[in-house]
Amino acid sequence: MNFSSKLIEEAVNVFASLPGIGKKTALRLVLHLINQETAISEQFANAIVNMRKNIKSCQKCHNLSDTPICNICNNPRRDANTICVVESIRDILAIEDTSQFKGLYHVLGGVISPIEGIGPADLHIDDLVTRIRNEKIKEVIMAISPTIEGDTTIFYISKKLKDHEVKLSTIARGVSFGGELEYADELTLGRSIVARVPYRKYGE
Amino acid sequence: MNFSSKLIEEAVNVFASLPGIGKKTALRLVLHLINQETAISEQFANAIVNMRKNIKSCQKCHNLSDTPICNICNNPRRDANTICVVESIRDILAIEDTSQFKGLYHVLGGVISPIEGIGPADLHIDDLVTRIRNEKIKEVIMAISPTIEGDTTIFYISKKLKDHEVKLSTIARGVSFGGELEYADELTLGRSIVARVPYRKYGE
Repeated sequence: MNFSSKLIEEAVNVFASLPGIGKKTALRLVLHLINQETAISEQFANAIVNMRKNIKSCQKCHNLSDTPICNICNNPRRDANTICVVESIRDILAIEDTSQFKGLYHVLGGVISPIEGIGPADLHIDDLVTRIRNEKIKEVIMAISPTIEGDTTIFYISKKLKDHEVKLSTIARGVSFGGELEYADELTLGRSIVARVPYRKYGE
Repeated sequence: MNFSSKLIEEAVNVFASLPGIGKKTALRLVLHLINQETAISEQFANAIVNMRKNIKSCQKCHNLSDTPICNICNNPRRDANTICVVESIRDILAIEDTSQFKGLYHVLGGVISPIEGIGPADLHIDDLVTRIRNEKIKEVIMAISPTIEGDTTIFYISKKLKDHEVKLSTIARGVSFGGELEYADELTLGRSIVARVPYRKYGE
């Protein structure tokens, strides 16, 4: 695109440098901001710079946090005996939205992937093991993607914990609720038959 | 979404206030910025605030501009006798990308639309008429959307210019180049038959 204005060109370029935003979308966003008051653009810019400058990684669980220890780790009403291990912060948000988990989290920062050059040392695994040993954790729930890399990571962690008394579990895998069987992929459907769960008969 | 961090929540909200960006996309953009250096976020914010504060509307054609008169109006190599009338700045970018027009522009800022409460006084029409009278314009090309509102606007402008010696034209309407006839809408196809153009026979 041939912008006659350097200012617009720069603003379009910074928007277009974000993932999933192309030049046309970037231009639409820039024109939107031009149609608003200057204060809106300033507010927008301030929120981003302020966030980026002050955001911290929780010293315990590596969740993003405004404070050195995050809100979840600091919450006395959460079950401090259970840790849910996740790949990324996004997973914490997704699990929190379900309201089904009241324990603490631990963010690995990814999964072991030799292809991408990510080894155990690049993840917060040692940290996790130390936490499990020191904080008297009773159960560790692995909420990690059911991929080869995810399974490798779970296996690696389980090996590290082999002589430590702690219950390990993975989140249930199977067909989605509300999903139709014919659209489930073969692997999931096959494994969900192998890992079938008993159904209680009426009155039992 | 239940963010445990106020800083992230605010940054997500400002991104999600932009058109076409939902909370999930906003979160992805925020996490992307967190993964980058702080300087990247600052550069991003500065480009936007700087653009919003300093961007001007060209006093002649109402194009967006870094200077009181835009680059196109200021360019002595452009044909100052022809004006292309467009609805918005985006149309200028689209036409400039074709490299088929070397004259000047005039941005109306929309089209006449009684339903949306936009009358001729809300658009830069009087301005256009004054420009045509004062700048000795020879041709005015109406590059306005072929809609009822667009046609109304063209008709209104043509009425305003009825006793002024100037050539008026609209951009050609018909089936797209490279498009297949069966997918063209009825109205376009029908009109393209009515407005057929002679084809020169071989050797003629």
